Amino acid sequence: MRMVKVLLLVKPKNEELQQLQKEFQGVTFSTDLQAARDAEVILGWNSKLSQTILENKKLRWIQAKSAGVDYFPLKELKNRGIILTTASGIHSRYIAETVGAYILIENRGLRPIIKNPGKWIEPQVLETTEQTVFIFGTGHIGTEIARYCKFFGMKVIGVNRHGADKKLMDIFDEVITMNQFKEQSNEVKADYVINILPGTAATRHFFDKERLKKFTPDYTFINVGRGSSVVTADLQKLLADHYLRSAYLDVFEKEPLPVSSSLWHSQEVVGTPHISGLIPHFNAALYPLFSENLRHYFAEEPLHNTIDYGKEY
Amino acid sequence: MRMVKVLLLVKPKNEELQQLQKEFQGVTFSTDLQAARDAEVILGWNSKLSQTILENKKLRWIQAKSAGVDYFPLKELKNRGIILTTASGIHSRYIAETVGAYILIENRGLRPIIKNPGKWIEPQVLETTEQTVFIFGTGHIGTEIARYCKFFGMKVIGVNRHGADKKLMDIFDEVITMNQFKEQSNEVKADYVINILPGTAATRHFFDKERLKKFTPDYTFINVGRGSSVVTADLQKLLADHYLRSAYLDVFEKEPLPVSSSLWHSQEVVGTPHISGLIPHFNAALYPLFSENLRHYFAEEPLHNTIDYGKEY
Repeated sequence: MRMVKVLLLVKPKNEELQQLQKEFQGVTFSTDLQAARDAEVILGWNSKLSQTILENKKLRWIQAKSAGVDYFPLKELKNRGIILTTASGIHSRYIAETVGAYILIENRGLRPIIKNPGKWIEPQVLETTEQTVFIFGTGHIGTEIARYCKFFGMKVIGVNRHGADKKLMDIFDEVITMNQFKEQSNEVKADYVINILPGTAATRHFFDKERLKKFTPDYTFINVGRGSSVVTADLQKLLADHYLRSAYLDVFEKEPLPVSSSLWHSQEVVGTPHISGLIPHFNAALYPLFSENLRHYFAEEPLHNTIDYGKEY
Repeated sequence: MRMVKVLLLVKPKNEELQQLQKEFQGVTFSTDLQAARDAEVILGWNSKLSQTILENKKLRWIQAKSAGVDYFPLKELKNRGIILTTASGIHSRYIAETVGAYILIENRGLRPIIKNPGKWIEPQVLETTEQTVFIFGTGHIGTEIARYCKFFGMKVIGVNRHGADKKLMDIFDEVITMNQFKEQSNEVKADYVINILPGTAATRHFFDKERLKKFTPDYTFINVGRGSSVVTADLQKLLADHYLRSAYLDVFEKEPLPVSSSLWHSQEVVGTPHISGLIPHFNAALYPLFSENLRHYFAEEPLHNTIDYGKEY
């Protein structure tokens, strides 16, 4: 094994560090930020070290701790020929649980109750088994959300770039391409529209007034992808007009969302502070994935979850 | 078919009334409250008519629209020999969805977020697949809640009067009797304790300080049964002492819960106004069950969901 320095920007527990040192003998694992200058591999990211990292001539691979990579200097990393891998997969069930919470809150009439504690009201409840959900994005996260929605008894339609394949059809009722969606007339019946698209140039402001109005009125919009894929002002207008029934937003164009924003306080919106993918035992989820990729790295085999700089995910 | 008058205290839709009239020819279906005096069968209840109904010598059977029957004059009905049947079963999935919402709200850290909109915080999240849930009551509702908890990846233990049977063991990981629970030492590990016990003399104040402390600290108590089975002051004390992590309460000793109650406003409690079993299309759920029982009634066969006045459910 070559002499290699690895910078760990996700602090390992003692046993995790010992495990790495035992398996990858001769490799130096450091949590010292100075190692940003000469590490060959970095786990995690620190935007304050961005310049140092980009000037590090030894750097060959960064393992992100997130599924999304929109906060990385992708152009510069691409130009430097640095491999970037994501932690895609480890957040999926947690995001699906969060989306499950949103759907059950809405269907059981809990939104007006949690917005107005103390009022003894009989809210409108919705029949889950009559509902259709559109999920934009059918990767690990979209598939896991689909699994929850199917358990709840909903009809689930996926929207992605490449369309249906056998594996997706085991879970989804239907999968259409983004182009098919764009070409559809303005009469798509949906009860929920869930966005988990990555934040890329291609998805920027994808959900504008026109796209949001492709669905028939009275649906609920859920965003656990990126705020950048929504034209927030258009969304707010459609909520104010009651074209949309409600929105559950975990991500925003500007984060943190200012405390004064109506997205926190409107009766129609449940806002949450970018928490949908929080993992209870984060290291225990991340380090096995990193170790597995380290094994591949030293064996010069392809890494899991390598991003395509052309697609930005 | 005998000449029989049926009072419908749950207003039927036109097609529902026509369906009944077509199937049960010769039977008079009335929504006129005057019929409380001489109807042989009553669907639903109206506490203002209680005296009139109890004086009605022709009355033989009441079909409740609810699963619980604690609001009926059980002693008087028993003395009169009147059959009382419940709508047990039709609310089950809806209550399970509500409980599912509570669990996912808690595990995804949404409670402090919905209690404090505008704060950009990173809440504690919990690992659902490591959790154990105790469900008090293993009938239709308990079994359906268990099915949701199993899907979420939880270990599910039922508590009932008769213990395990083959059907329950298809869903529950374990079933113990109430007596076994009472005799257990104070070291039962639970993450969630869910009460769906009916409101009877036997369950009155079942969850007092001693019983609530049989479980190790830091669990969440969910009540979708009846408020009468909990000593509210004990529950509040254990919440204030942080012995309990949190509580999700849909039922209360006194309903409606006063607007000033801390059970609405405490950071540790999510209160909801007795909505866990609301059914989106109520008549469509109730009338088929009533028709089926009417068929049995005229055929002099046993009715579904007949209550045992000794057990009060």
